[in-house]
Amino acid sequence: MALSERDLIEHIRKQAAASSARGLIKGIGDDCSVFGTSARGAWLVSTDMLVDGVHFTREWHPPRLLGRKSIAVNLSDIAAMGGVPRFFLLSVSLPPWLSSEWLFQWLEGVSAILSEYDCVLIGGDTVSGQELNISVTVLGEQHPAGIIYRSGARSGDTVYVSGPLGSSAAGLEILKRTGGDGLQRNSGWEILINTHLDPIPQVQLGQVLCASGCVSAMQDISDGLATDLSHICNESGVGAVIRGQRLPHLPELDEVCSALQLHKSDCILRGGEDYQLVFCVSRGREKDLEEYVKKAGNYVVYPVGTIEMGRGVSLEDDQGRRRDITFQGYEHQL
Amino acid sequence: MALSERDLIEHIRKQAAASSARGLIKGIGDDCSVFGTSARGAWLVSTDMLVDGVHFTREWHPPRLLGRKSIAVNLSDIAAMGGVPRFFLLSVSLPPWLSSEWLFQWLEGVSAILSEYDCVLIGGDTVSGQELNISVTVLGEQHPAGIIYRSGARSGDTVYVSGPLGSSAAGLEILKRTGGDGLQRNSGWEILINTHLDPIPQVQLGQVLCASGCVSAMQDISDGLATDLSHICNESGVGAVIRGQRLPHLPELDEVCSALQLHKSDCILRGGEDYQLVFCVSRGREKDLEEYVKKAGNYVVYPVGTIEMGRGVSLEDDQGRRRDITFQGYEHQL
Repeated sequence: MALSERDLIEHIRKQAAASSARGLIKGIGDDCSVFGTSARGAWLVSTDMLVDGVHFTREWHPPRLLGRKSIAVNLSDIAAMGGVPRFFLLSVSLPPWLSSEWLFQWLEGVSAILSEYDCVLIGGDTVSGQELNISVTVLGEQHPAGIIYRSGARSGDTVYVSGPLGSSAAGLEILKRTGGDGLQRNSGWEILINTHLDPIPQVQLGQVLCASGCVSAMQDISDGLATDLSHICNESGVGAVIRGQRLPHLPELDEVCSALQLHKSDCILRGGEDYQLVFCVSRGREKDLEEYVKKAGNYVVYPVGTIEMGRGVSLEDDQGRRRDITFQGYEHQL
Repeated sequence: MALSERDLIEHIRKQAAASSARGLIKGIGDDCSVFGTSARGAWLVSTDMLVDGVHFTREWHPPRLLGRKSIAVNLSDIAAMGGVPRFFLLSVSLPPWLSSEWLFQWLEGVSAILSEYDCVLIGGDTVSGQELNISVTVLGEQHPAGIIYRSGARSGDTVYVSGPLGSSAAGLEILKRTGGDGLQRNSGWEILINTHLDPIPQVQLGQVLCASGCVSAMQDISDGLATDLSHICNESGVGAVIRGQRLPHLPELDEVCSALQLHKSDCILRGGEDYQLVFCVSRGREKDLEEYVKKAGNYVVYPVGTIEMGRGVSLEDDQGRRRDITFQGYEHQL
């Protein structure tokens, strides 16, 4: 297809922006759109589509865990705005060869994670197709004044991430190379594989960051730190520099990268699907923030860089040398 | 697949019903779910998935009209609750062979109908796939006290439909038999073909019916009158009898059914996709209702039957003979 996905999104976004709309607080261009009023404030909404063979591999993704992940990726969008997830709509296109057993297990995974997050399924559609396609819409709540957007980063802010990066990318690579037997065969690396198969969205932490009053901008890391931080920079009209040696990762990532000859920095910067949060803290509020999250839930967060004047995202090595890493990862978010 | 779609929906519905949820006014089981509070009352939400070769045939469906229909089927769900449509989310899985030209025309159709109904696109996702799959979520508003559910029909109510039935089914049949050249070749039947390709959701009429205060239950006719009225009967715990000779249809339907040897009653009762409304009017309010809609927008509505004690939907012929037609049509709605 000649048309790039980014062209298409730009086209849709322009058309959407052309309309003025009563009750719309924030349209296309963030992890969620924000509209209306609710008991708690405003409504957040986001949607994702997952296709077999593109976003997941049915052969090695246990249906229960895929059910959980189908919901988790949307929970992560709510987390990225500091919201409280409430309702889900779930549509699925079912190929004729799909077994009822698979489907029931998938649904069990969906139900389990919904109840863990006190969310309710309020709609959906089941259709026949040749390709397994899962489309999920989530609705959440948050007070409009408390919502954290991508657009609030300012020069001098410190860039943080909420946890280790690269685990999901390495886990996926193990699964690819072992054809899905990775869980059994590579004892010790389960944590990486599990991050890929059953990622944990940072919903509670997102709300804590929101309540801290110290966070200027936030986004979830679904497409890789380089790409997702580029979104924050673009929306905020700033640049960012990331210090390579500061990026948190699990010790298992080092092992796997040696064993499988993977580029560790690619996993960390471009891997995506860790569903951690990247966020910016106003200059001088770093200590307050770190104490606040520690107190609120014993969370540890990791300063990894700085927001600067300019454009784009750079990676700085321990010699102080910089290279541009803007938008180096997946791009499929609208 | 051994599991029927109805089993699956029942399974999901049970799980959904098991949760109590603050702010949820009506969960799965109607054209829309209803939640929260809004300036105008409450929010309505519904979602539909359309798959190439199942819900539409790309070969003969002009992309602009398919774009319109992708939105129209969801507008119709809002219409069926008497709501005001506001926001849309639109996800699409794009196969590699799809041309940018097709996509831009499809998007033009989407944009055109959104602006006609004063709606705004507030989110979505574009992904790669092997099958063209379109997933649409709509949000609308209505005062909770004004929303018309499927569950309000009472014995003695009169069953109405909002316009001619069977047009879309006949239009589809013409397209199938002429391989999509129908529009050019069969002058005079365009109205049937257009109803299939570019159906008009009854959004304004739905709101008028809502405001009339005379309507006890309502649903849109997407899967055929027999099936859609069965939903009303099931949810209301009543039965219905339809008088065959009262069912409105276009004169072109008679012509096409003769020419192509189609069963007219199948088109009318089981055809679906006309996106008219079927609704019930409380006993003794029929005259009021007919005058109200005439005054409000010169609408004509058609009494076609009666709600009775019991279960299921029967068709009564002009001799007074009855046969059961419960759930004779498509079933894919959650």
